[in-house]
Amino acid sequence: MKYQVDINSDIGENFGVYKIGMDDEIVKYISSANIACGFHAGDPNVMSNTVAKCSKNAVGVGAHPGFPDLLGFGRRNMDVSLTDVKNYIIYQIGALQAFATSFGIKLQHVKTHGALYNMAAVDEKLAIAIAEAIASVNENLICIGMPNTAMQMAAEKVGLRFACEVFADRNINSDGTLVSRKLTNAIIHDEELACRRVLQMVKKGVCEAIDGTIVKVKVDTICVHGDNPKAVEFTKKIKKILEENGVEIIPMGKFL
Amino acid sequence: MKYQVDINSDIGENFGVYKIGMDDEIVKYISSANIACGFHAGDPNVMSNTVAKCSKNAVGVGAHPGFPDLLGFGRRNMDVSLTDVKNYIIYQIGALQAFATSFGIKLQHVKTHGALYNMAAVDEKLAIAIAEAIASVNENLICIGMPNTAMQMAAEKVGLRFACEVFADRNINSDGTLVSRKLTNAIIHDEELACRRVLQMVKKGVCEAIDGTIVKVKVDTICVHGDNPKAVEFTKKIKKILEENGVEIIPMGKFL
Amino acid sequence: MKYQVDINSDIGENFGVYKIGMDDEIVKYISSANIACGFHAGDPNVMSNTVAKCSKNAVGVGAHPGFPDLLGFGRRNMDVSLTDVKNYIIYQIGALQAFATSFGIKLQHVKTHGALYNMAAVDEKLAIAIAEAIASVNENLICIGMPNTAMQMAAEKVGLRFACEVFADRNINSDGTLVSRKLTNAIIHDEELACRRVLQMVKKGVCEAIDGTIVKVKVDTICVHGDNPKAVEFTKKIKKILEENGVEIIPMGKFL
Amino acid sequence: MKYQVDINSDIGENFGVYKIGMDDEIVKYISSANIACGFHAGDPNVMSNTVAKCSKNAVGVGAHPGFPDLLGFGRRNMDVSLTDVKNYIIYQIGALQAFATSFGIKLQHVKTHGALYNMAAVDEKLAIAIAEAIASVNENLICIGMPNTAMQMAAEKVGLRFACEVFADRNINSDGTLVSRKLTNAIIHDEELACRRVLQMVKKGVCEAIDGTIVKVKVDTICVHGDNPKAVEFTKKIKKILEENGVEIIPMGKFL
Repeated sequence: MKYQVDINSDIGENFGVYKIGMDDEIVKYISSANIACGFHAGDPNVMSNTVAKCSKNAVGVGAHPGFPDLLGFGRRNMDVSLTDVKNYIIYQIGALQAFATSFGIKLQHVKTHGALYNMAAVDEKLAIAIAEAIASVNENLICIGMPNTAMQMAAEKVGLRFACEVFADRNINSDGTLVSRKLTNAIIHDEELACRRVLQMVKKGVCEAIDGTIVKVKVDTICVHGDNPKAVEFTKKIKKILEENGVEIIPMGKFL
Repeated sequence: MKYQVDINSDIGENFGVYKIGMDDEIVKYISSANIACGFHAGDPNVMSNTVAKCSKNAVGVGAHPGFPDLLGFGRRNMDVSLTDVKNYIIYQIGALQAFATSFGIKLQHVKTHGALYNMAAVDEKLAIAIAEAIASVNENLICIGMPNTAMQMAAEKVGLRFACEVFADRNINSDGTLVSRKLTNAIIHDEELACRRVLQMVKKGVCEAIDGTIVKVKVDTICVHGDNPKAVEFTKKIKKILEENGVEIIPMGKFL
Repeated sequence: MKYQVDINSDIGENFGVYKIGMDDEIVKYISSANIACGFHAGDPNVMSNTVAKCSKNAVGVGAHPGFPDLLGFGRRNMDVSLTDVKNYIIYQIGALQAFATSFGIKLQHVKTHGALYNMAAVDEKLAIAIAEAIASVNENLICIGMPNTAMQMAAEKVGLRFACEVFADRNINSDGTLVSRKLTNAIIHDEELACRRVLQMVKKGVCEAIDGTIVKVKVDTICVHGDNPKAVEFTKKIKKILEENGVEIIPMGKFL
Repeated sequence: MKYQVDINSDIGENFGVYKIGMDDEIVKYISSANIACGFHAGDPNVMSNTVAKCSKNAVGVGAHPGFPDLLGFGRRNMDVSLTDVKNYIIYQIGALQAFATSFGIKLQHVKTHGALYNMAAVDEKLAIAIAEAIASVNENLICIGMPNTAMQMAAEKVGLRFACEVFADRNINSDGTLVSRKLTNAIIHDEELACRRVLQMVKKGVCEAIDGTIVKVKVDTICVHGDNPKAVEFTKKIKKILEENGVEIIPMGKFL
């Protein structure tokens, strides 16, 4: 049997003179990138440079639309209308798609950012608006989200391919949801353990929940961070262990 | 002989709760629209609504990119780099193109706005950067500008179709340039006269300069305003006179 | 007995080339103005011009701080932290105060805008943050809000003077709260009736609720609108009836 | 004779999640701070935190207003009107002043930022507009600028105290102007030499120009940078050498 999985990370979050994240490093170890589109982070120059980096490293390019809230980095819930959200998504996908086109590559996917991502996981109407917005620009785009969320249902209802993502360093409950960050055991600090869990999820399709239950988990893409040296090292390690165990890491568009 | 010309206007300049321009009216009398893309005016909701209006009225849709200066409505010169401009243009075209796609229509053209339009008329490097940005997104896009400007040369050099535009209410010098707005005779206030001049430009390819010289003028598209009732009435009159004299008014993409 | 009341309105909501509201008209009939501070509306030029208008018409000048959401006109709830809100308020008051100083006048009051106003009416922690922010800039500033709200309690706790405001055109429930705009009887469309109610509130301190109950109501300032000709006419009428009935209309700072 | 001089640096340039500059370090070695006011950098939270740092370190607090161009960090010339500039300055000073007030301290000075600083050095009308704006908010504010510039003349004409600033690491021409950054000898890389020059400027009031001429130089404040470890070390060294040579480093407001 052939094992394939994607590794994704949020990049292109610089703005003007402001730098954030170790894009030049993390881009070597991921297969797909979620690129900020100028609303919560990113600007036209950053977007162009970031698409160039992805192109050079054969990384799949995706739009990472967020709320129009640079001041809050898109992390604050905003009580926007469904029409607002739909048009914010279309706008941002279009902007990034143009940069992709300018480098002769195709947009692969869309992953919403921050507060919008969290809200879309539980708000069906919002999730449908997002899925419709994506499909209205390009129905071949893949939508990334957590499995068994409103976002997954919406993507499937609208007819989009959906990529189930897991977080390499997060514990899960027996119902498959993430352990809340408010709890002390939300994060897995033992990197070796985290890597073994990822490998098990990818090859066996299961994961151990915090109460010991073995939970079925579908993994299309693994979300990693690239904002600090430790995160980059961790990603490098995950990639190495997966590859050593016969898992091919490639952009999700190639196997979904 | 068959006479064809386009009439274009800047629309979609609302922002949030702010309304400006009589888009619902002017859209009935024009054949192409330059739609603001969120930098100097316009927002995602406005862009969607404006593309919808154009689609309903069979008006050709174009991007109207400007400087990132909502506070100054894109009318203030900014000392941006060529890279900045290139990426600002790509971003804005992409954003509008996505809305066009979402309504199943193709983007027809690009016309820069305000200070950027004026600067690109005389700055060759800037004009080349703009033309290259347009071509990098979609080489079938038409570039609108004044004839015999840096913008025209740049568009042609880069291989874009160029639409020569004239202003229905402006006097010209014997070298074909516009009479400066600082002079009292910059504007033609006699609507009948303005209409006759437009008709002559379209059918004969000539125009009388302020010193009486007869100047050769190529007209692909006539620029009109839609921000007040008088301007809308004037446009209605121009359209009527042109059509009564056998000139067909159609989107520039159909004859260029 | 001497009757005095203030009439307040939100003005200075233009932005750049965008115009909204009939400020030049409404300013003649009000005694206090809530001036937008550049976050949800307004810009430095507008703020200066608006303070000048108030100065000329002897209208009390107040800051009208809102969420940093020009696109949504400050009408969308945002999940900001208490620190965020506190600093947004300080920033905006300071900006407006500088314009007041530049015209040789003192800032009289602060009234939060839109979503922030509504949230502060029911969220005690938020209301305290707002009251503390106001006091930290100038403890002589009056805070405007609806009576019996979290905002009133917070203002009083912090030691600020509080101005109870009523809405001339809104029906109230027997507990003194506004009838929800979702209900058909939220708005009083009969101007004569509305004027009689305002007069009764000011002179008798009571108002008839929708269920016929007579409710005690404290009125320091009456909120009116100036965004359309009808609203301006209505304000003119209220002012006339109040004055004809011996009520003096003066800036709240003179009697609170 | 008693020698006193001020050392100033631009701080408070973070924005939202974006960090820039080593404010916590540099604030220990300077006596005055120019704090960004939210237009080209800074935000309300950053402004509050930065004023707090200055307060704790007894550093004089100044406003550092710039163009409304976060994307370009206020470094791009913008063709704004004099009215625009005047009101942008008033707005930004007011915003910062409110934070100073909230910490119980007084604003000491104003120094324009980036492109605005450079333009005001040579454009008399612009400089007058800036000086008038400062005076209209608070005529006790000190204006920082390079000596013998339009800004100095304007400040003096309007009646503001003016602080002459020199740059510790820049060579000068025989007319006292800075050697252009386009030339290879613009920057003094030898820190010892730079420190000796600063000491000579402060104690003798003279400096050697690149052609060997000895030029008279008035120094009220020395501009240093805090955006990298090397710059912080350099500042520490300047402070040490000045103090070892009997020069007291104190906020300019104490001796001007």
